[in-house]
Amino acid sequence: MSRVAIYPGSFDPITNGHVWIIKRGLDVFDRLIVAIARNVKKTSLFDLAERQDLIRQALDGDSRVEIVSFDGLLVDYARKRGAHVILRGLRAVADFEYEFQMANMNRKLAPEVETIFMMTGEEYFYVSSALVKEVAALGGDVEDLVPKCVVGPLKRKAGAA
Amino acid sequence: MSRVAIYPGSFDPITNGHVWIIKRGLDVFDRLIVAIARNVKKTSLFDLAERQDLIRQALDGDSRVEIVSFDGLLVDYARKRGAHVILRGLRAVADFEYEFQMANMNRKLAPEVETIFMMTGEEYFYVSSALVKEVAALGGDVEDLVPKCVVGPLKRKAGAA
Amino acid sequence: MSRVAIYPGSFDPITNGHVWIIKRGLDVFDRLIVAIARNVKKTSLFDLAERQDLIRQALDGDSRVEIVSFDGLLVDYARKRGAHVILRGLRAVADFEYEFQMANMNRKLAPEVETIFMMTGEEYFYVSSALVKEVAALGGDVEDLVPKCVVGPLKRKAGAA
Amino acid sequence: MSRVAIYPGSFDPITNGHVWIIKRGLDVFDRLIVAIARNVKKTSLFDLAERQDLIRQALDGDSRVEIVSFDGLLVDYARKRGAHVILRGLRAVADFEYEFQMANMNRKLAPEVETIFMMTGEEYFYVSSALVKEVAALGGDVEDLVPKCVVGPLKRKAGAA
Amino acid sequence: MSRVAIYPGSFDPITNGHVWIIKRGLDVFDRLIVAIARNVKKTSLFDLAERQDLIRQALDGDSRVEIVSFDGLLVDYARKRGAHVILRGLRAVADFEYEFQMANMNRKLAPEVETIFMMTGEEYFYVSSALVKEVAALGGDVEDLVPKCVVGPLKRKAGAA
Amino acid sequence: MSRVAIYPGSFDPITNGHVWIIKRGLDVFDRLIVAIARNVKKTSLFDLAERQDLIRQALDGDSRVEIVSFDGLLVDYARKRGAHVILRGLRAVADFEYEFQMANMNRKLAPEVETIFMMTGEEYFYVSSALVKEVAALGGDVEDLVPKCVVGPLKRKAGAA
Repeated sequence: MSRVAIYPGSFDPITNGHVWIIKRGLDVFDRLIVAIARNVKKTSLFDLAERQDLIRQALDGDSRVEIVSFDGLLVDYARKRGAHVILRGLRAVADFEYEFQMANMNRKLAPEVETIFMMTGEEYFYVSSALVKEVAALGGDVEDLVPKCVVGPLKRKAGAA
Repeated sequence: MSRVAIYPGSFDPITNGHVWIIKRGLDVFDRLIVAIARNVKKTSLFDLAERQDLIRQALDGDSRVEIVSFDGLLVDYARKRGAHVILRGLRAVADFEYEFQMANMNRKLAPEVETIFMMTGEEYFYVSSALVKEVAALGGDVEDLVPKCVVGPLKRKAGAA
Repeated sequence: MSRVAIYPGSFDPITNGHVWIIKRGLDVFDRLIVAIARNVKKTSLFDLAERQDLIRQALDGDSRVEIVSFDGLLVDYARKRGAHVILRGLRAVADFEYEFQMANMNRKLAPEVETIFMMTGEEYFYVSSALVKEVAALGGDVEDLVPKCVVGPLKRKAGAA
Repeated sequence: MSRVAIYPGSFDPITNGHVWIIKRGLDVFDRLIVAIARNVKKTSLFDLAERQDLIRQALDGDSRVEIVSFDGLLVDYARKRGAHVILRGLRAVADFEYEFQMANMNRKLAPEVETIFMMTGEEYFYVSSALVKEVAALGGDVEDLVPKCVVGPLKRKAGAA
Repeated sequence: MSRVAIYPGSFDPITNGHVWIIKRGLDVFDRLIVAIARNVKKTSLFDLAERQDLIRQALDGDSRVEIVSFDGLLVDYARKRGAHVILRGLRAVADFEYEFQMANMNRKLAPEVETIFMMTGEEYFYVSSALVKEVAALGGDVEDLVPKCVVGPLKRKAGAA
Repeated sequence: MSRVAIYPGSFDPITNGHVWIIKRGLDVFDRLIVAIARNVKKTSLFDLAERQDLIRQALDGDSRVEIVSFDGLLVDYARKRGAHVILRGLRAVADFEYEFQMANMNRKLAPEVETIFMMTGEEYFYVSSALVKEVAALGGDVEDLVPKCVVGPLKRKAGAA
């Protein structure tokens, strides 16, 4: 029986921190479902198709990873897919508080779905999508922070934003 | 002489966490003034009259609780009412930092008004108005998170939002 | 009916931070029971009688404050005294975590006893008994950190330690 | 291929918080190795054989769980057993900091071993072995905090301590 | 050779907390460059010229302080000025997390520029520009929170906002 | 006029984290006084002479660094040396709380001495003397965690401990 975990997020865009968690996650699980939350209210820099495409390029078509999008509750999507594990990366205390709240809420909504956490690698623990967009918008170098395939699109989009 | 405390908040809408603090607060104080902050800049899901009404229903007309709204500084309202105690619920570290800042500011503005804190019950410490609105908007079950009287209105309002 | 709260601690020795909480606590409660935890395992600088004596002097015989010692569980002592409120001072995040754990445990052990918290005044929020003993032992000036009556005994005891 | 995770700790004694993590961990992994750290410097209330025996009783002989003890580095033991995952429970911010440090150190020492975290259930997130021993020593009721089989031995040992 | 540090911020408006850090910073560095971040996206209460003017008045023309504005990355501005030190004030844990992230990002972007931190004085550690604007908007007294020259303009602007 | 900062600690033994702070500190200050706290109560793995010697070797005789030991209060030693700056490394939230308390206490004891903080490099932010001693005692590899000259002595001392 193969083990599947859902790795949810906005991925606007995917960063090296995300890639790190996905790679380590594949040491623990057989397959990962990278699930982009569709959120009509939140404005994103990259549209859904672009975000999916960048993830695909960044992961170089690893067949153990499925890239999807979902709306509604994450736990409802997990149930629909028959997945019992949500994977989340932890970076710092602020993350921890938010993740603690969400993990408890999700457990309340779907007790059979478990959230597990992995610590983001030390070289990426300060990297977030929001911060790389800010750096790119100000003309900073993001080459070590995001996958190669993201550098160009990020510079174009963020610079023009 | 009866002891009065002010329990301020947005209550948009009242949650089981709020109810928990109010009930425990009434073990410590004779009367509570539940004070809804009117904030013209912040958009709310429920209007002021609705929020007051839901609190009233949730507390089942407990005569020891007065439900009011105020604008301006909380400490000015406390002074006007002759109340010397502000009651706040604490949930997590993020809360603590914010509450710490506000308690110190309020102490600076009105040294004779004291802020006291109670820990939210373990079963509700991850429950906030913002989170229950988000869950309801995504079609999740909020029945254990808010008072019975809030469930229907919350589903209608948040779902339509 | 008068309101009583128990203010527990080691008070080895009483600091200005403790005095601050006691004074503010008396704005909220009619009477306070300052309760020194007897702990045979923990070595203290001042013995029980000395600690009680220093608290008494520091509070200048305020008749609203009763100074006692107890062993066993704090909540059992609270029950025996018919007190429904435990008062604790909060200083910082580290405090908060410990206090959060204790408040939850005490609530589990005695649901009818409530723990409430007050923020220590900004001028004392870094002052603990442990730290003032360390400063005194190294020859530092503790005059603004502890009540006048504690300065001499602390210098003698800590310096000799 | 079966998935194995190591769940290390002192288990002095096993609490309901530990049991909770083990049960949820078995929803994610096929087998768990509960690994008691032998630490000659740290004094324990229960000796190694007693701790192992209490874990066994608490888990009711679940054949998916192996109970062992180890000395030396945890990652060396993980390597020897061919386990690539360390499972840890998270309770609060203080935990988080310590676990963050240990996870990073273990990753440095053995990059192929991953640490994953699960949040302890809300009803046990304030329960630690140290705290239940303290409560038991003071005559408090520990029946909801530890497995049934631990209650008697804990009362006898801690009470006499 | 004179030591220069850059002290960046929004300064919308300058508070007593900022003044405190600047004064203490001048005990460590020969000169400070107070650098206002121009951010076209963030709406400010005071425009750039007003903010510069208020800082100038608050510091009473101290010739060791240069007041500038910059856009783009802070580290790029630091490089352009030949400054190797960024000075930041720390107030609380929430600050710390954010500052930790920014310090690491800036170190990545410009390894030769170092960020150093000073703790804001205890009497101002709860004072932020955002909070003083909120207090002023609600009619509260801000005289102890901001420099004298800021009180009038803040009341006019925030009251009208 | 040359700028001097005191960098105090136990240095039992010096780690790569300490070396990192010293090197970065020398980008900000002309000279550093590495000051080993003599603490007769705390048992150390390395004696004072050994600790000084290891620091000296690790810094390769950098003439801008003076290695000393002191007893009594740190701020008294700073005053005696005419140093106005204490330099401290920050690693994580737990550190921050402790450092916050000490910085405030030292400011109280010696207002003219300022404490400044630098963030430890990401690759060492989980490295402490206590942890490297623990790892070495359990036979773990410490070569990337401490200076080369410390590896052998640490293995011998900690292994035998």
